[in-house]
Amino acid sequence: MIPPSSPQDPSIIAPFSGAQTASNSPAGLIRLNDLSDSRLSDVLDLSDRFKAGVRRPELAGKSVGFLFFRGSLRTRTAFEVAVHQLGGQGVHMSAGSDFWEVEARDGVVMDGTAPEHVRDAAAVMSTYCDALAIRPRPAGNAWAVDRRDEGIHAWARHASVPIINMESALGHPLQALADLMTLRETFGKDLAGKRIAIVWTPSPTPAGPSVVHSMLLAALRSGMQVSLAHPRGYELDEGVMSEARALGAEHPSGGLEHANTARDAAKDAHVVYARSWMSLENYGNSTRAASRVATERRDWLVDESMMQLGKEARLMHPMPIRRNLEVTDSVLDGPRSLVYQQAANRLPTQKGLLSLLLRGQ
Amino acid sequence: MIPPSSPQDPSIIAPFSGAQTASNSPAGLIRLNDLSDSRLSDVLDLSDRFKAGVRRPELAGKSVGFLFFRGSLRTRTAFEVAVHQLGGQGVHMSAGSDFWEVEARDGVVMDGTAPEHVRDAAAVMSTYCDALAIRPRPAGNAWAVDRRDEGIHAWARHASVPIINMESALGHPLQALADLMTLRETFGKDLAGKRIAIVWTPSPTPAGPSVVHSMLLAALRSGMQVSLAHPRGYELDEGVMSEARALGAEHPSGGLEHANTARDAAKDAHVVYARSWMSLENYGNSTRAASRVATERRDWLVDESMMQLGKEARLMHPMPIRRNLEVTDSVLDGPRSLVYQQAANRLPTQKGLLSLLLRGQ
Amino acid sequence: MIPPSSPQDPSIIAPFSGAQTASNSPAGLIRLNDLSDSRLSDVLDLSDRFKAGVRRPELAGKSVGFLFFRGSLRTRTAFEVAVHQLGGQGVHMSAGSDFWEVEARDGVVMDGTAPEHVRDAAAVMSTYCDALAIRPRPAGNAWAVDRRDEGIHAWARHASVPIINMESALGHPLQALADLMTLRETFGKDLAGKRIAIVWTPSPTPAGPSVVHSMLLAALRSGMQVSLAHPRGYELDEGVMSEARALGAEHPSGGLEHANTARDAAKDAHVVYARSWMSLENYGNSTRAASRVATERRDWLVDESMMQLGKEARLMHPMPIRRNLEVTDSVLDGPRSLVYQQAANRLPTQKGLLSLLLRGQ
Repeated sequence: MIPPSSPQDPSIIAPFSGAQTASNSPAGLIRLNDLSDSRLSDVLDLSDRFKAGVRRPELAGKSVGFLFFRGSLRTRTAFEVAVHQLGGQGVHMSAGSDFWEVEARDGVVMDGTAPEHVRDAAAVMSTYCDALAIRPRPAGNAWAVDRRDEGIHAWARHASVPIINMESALGHPLQALADLMTLRETFGKDLAGKRIAIVWTPSPTPAGPSVVHSMLLAALRSGMQVSLAHPRGYELDEGVMSEARALGAEHPSGGLEHANTARDAAKDAHVVYARSWMSLENYGNSTRAASRVATERRDWLVDESMMQLGKEARLMHPMPIRRNLEVTDSVLDGPRSLVYQQAANRLPTQKGLLSLLLRGQ
Repeated sequence: MIPPSSPQDPSIIAPFSGAQTASNSPAGLIRLNDLSDSRLSDVLDLSDRFKAGVRRPELAGKSVGFLFFRGSLRTRTAFEVAVHQLGGQGVHMSAGSDFWEVEARDGVVMDGTAPEHVRDAAAVMSTYCDALAIRPRPAGNAWAVDRRDEGIHAWARHASVPIINMESALGHPLQALADLMTLRETFGKDLAGKRIAIVWTPSPTPAGPSVVHSMLLAALRSGMQVSLAHPRGYELDEGVMSEARALGAEHPSGGLEHANTARDAAKDAHVVYARSWMSLENYGNSTRAASRVATERRDWLVDESMMQLGKEARLMHPMPIRRNLEVTDSVLDGPRSLVYQQAANRLPTQKGLLSLLLRGQ
Repeated sequence: MIPPSSPQDPSIIAPFSGAQTASNSPAGLIRLNDLSDSRLSDVLDLSDRFKAGVRRPELAGKSVGFLFFRGSLRTRTAFEVAVHQLGGQGVHMSAGSDFWEVEARDGVVMDGTAPEHVRDAAAVMSTYCDALAIRPRPAGNAWAVDRRDEGIHAWARHASVPIINMESALGHPLQALADLMTLRETFGKDLAGKRIAIVWTPSPTPAGPSVVHSMLLAALRSGMQVSLAHPRGYELDEGVMSEARALGAEHPSGGLEHANTARDAAKDAHVVYARSWMSLENYGNSTRAASRVATERRDWLVDESMMQLGKEARLMHPMPIRRNLEVTDSVLDGPRSLVYQQAANRLPTQKGLLSLLLRGQ
């Protein structure tokens, strides 16, 4: 996807080994950049082969623990089926019914509500399972805190098996893998120079910016030209934006620009990537966030006329989709839509990732 | 069970292919009538063989998704064990912790609480799983609405894999399969002319009429003579009753009659089928429903003296049973009881059904 | 572990066959004493072999049902992985989402909240599963009631498959198996005469005394010298203490003594076994219990200086651990700690137990 010889700023795309120095756990996937270019290519190539029907019992005798501190439909089902098809076992756990919240701070006197430290939970679960996939629950009070993804980093620090991020506050690398696979299937393996419009959509229950962060960085890393559009006040995380600008400057074929409206962004786009996300200005204030959305919604519905501004533009969306509020039925159910292909690709990409992380062990 | 040459009103027992015309999904089981006579016989014959110990890995490499919008003990455990014994994988999901409510109406602007449309959830889950079994949660406000079973029909319309009903408002075909197997084991494959009393029992937390609907239609379709007894105000669904009357008229050996009391119904019966169900008059009004039950309960307890009115009558009940309120300990634990056999037959019949639906794929 | 010729009071250590006379179910494990000395040795020897890497598909084609009326992390994950590694299937169920509370009293008119009798639930689940493991939820109102463990005994009485206790009010035999394995690995198979200090630790959310009860009896049964220390008001169950005193008197190498402080108990100990437990005086009164803990906590923290009072003493704790409130980081993370080994031994011991209980069936 990215030529092996392309120059890379190690402060931005940390090489795989370096990213793990502070961690006990072997190669996992907290953010997409934990995968070097060659390993990312390997995952996607493996995914293609799994989708073509290859079956390999590479997880025979292995168990993967799934810890959900927030609910899940696609990620969970795709992962459980993936593990089974690879001959392994998935152990599914949900916070609340199956386990408790854990303390992540080091050195504190644990006289609060958390009965167990992540240090201990991670060490113990590592003795039962060969990998741990985690969907942490951001506290939802302050973005400056949640953006650090301390929960999942603490698991990675203390586990002795690979840790896989099933969507944290900052990123959703599994969705990015499926999205990259879908883009490669549609436009070929070389995505350099393809234009993608990443556009905000309204929702009364908007998601965090994780998916958009991961897609933005994945597209720029692939040399794509990104046009980003959202209402004022819906700016993405500043650290991610810095990383994005650096990546954009680095690829001659690609780059990052801002558009004032979704229609401006969609102009000449090969792909319109739609997604609701919450205002980080109003992070933790759902009432104020919701009232904002109501006033914005009219101009940000992705419809047929917006799609026609692109170059035979295709629609992507990571789901769940609020139909006719984010995207019209006719676009979703028409020939431009890649959304079911994206969702279907969760299975082979999660098989590809598990295969890469665990087969050699 | 029903001679292949028996005349059938296609408006009542829809032939299998016809029942699927409005659906994307291949042969599933929403109501027992989705199985033609020959396919129903096939399921029951397969079930006998599984119970006799036959083991076949017919689901090897296949995954079945179980979506519970309401809890379950028997259905769920039997299904998970069934899938495993057939060599496949079950993926269990519960609403609330694992997924969310879905929108089922077409064309609406989704600005309410449901974040996802069943159209999308069904399409995506179909790419991960080879069949989807669903226990919807009736809204519980109006029987006129819930009786349409819109939730599960919407899944069937949008899924591309077989949909299996794990109990909807209107019916519980899986329980009917186990009950038919139990009747065949007890009385032989030809049930024509056997007398079954279907009698209401009291409960402070009565179930819906789904099981009774399915048993009533299954018994009549098998040519049995049904005597139905319940307090005034506990009439079953009118559409189901029309279908039942037509089936009763069609079979020379069988028929449907009403009795005023459980004792009248039990007279000369070969089987007393006991089950609590709520008053559809008080549907959605649990306070009024409960106060009614208190006044009725004295006369409707199934005890030894009631059983002795029958012809060596056997007791059936689909469980859960409120002991000594619905049926006495001595009947339940005595030689007349078939209740554990019914429950045990959930496993081979659900294997039989999965085998029929999935082996040829 | 205990010489086969050692004298035993049958009223205290019921021989395995006798313990089952009141039960329909074959050999299960409600309390550690359900295992005779030779069977206990067998389980621990099997566990050693499993830990050494032996893989045997002894549960092929078998399903084990896990019923959690309370949540679990270690017990559950270890069991699910154990069953899978033995070639079987685990079916996980949680009260609330997957099933309901059950009635355990015989002969009552079931017009209360429980919709099903344990008699029926146990009989039915026995037809689907080859063993049932249960974590009951003590009512938490009166210790005199909860100490009877009526819930799990009712399951054992009515099931026709082995019942395994995954921690009841009175005991936690699975933890005791892992703890015995850990002691054997550390000190050799003959534990007679080794000194263990069992010491109370503070917690705002203390556990019940189940683990301590089981460890106390297991240590005394193994001929160890136990020194027990806790604040006044935290006395263990009187029935367990009688059993403990008798066991202590019976083994020349062992015995039971009380210490006033944790430091006194730790003196010359080979092992300090730390665990928080609630005051049975304040059982069911969490407010009063919590206020007590606050005043006690200063003197009961296990730290390096306490450990140095022992004879190269090792630290044990069954987890979860409140760091720096129960035990300091430096002890937990230092070379004295056996806590991760204990937790890791949950997997091979639970495999050993399943293998013993189910392989011969």
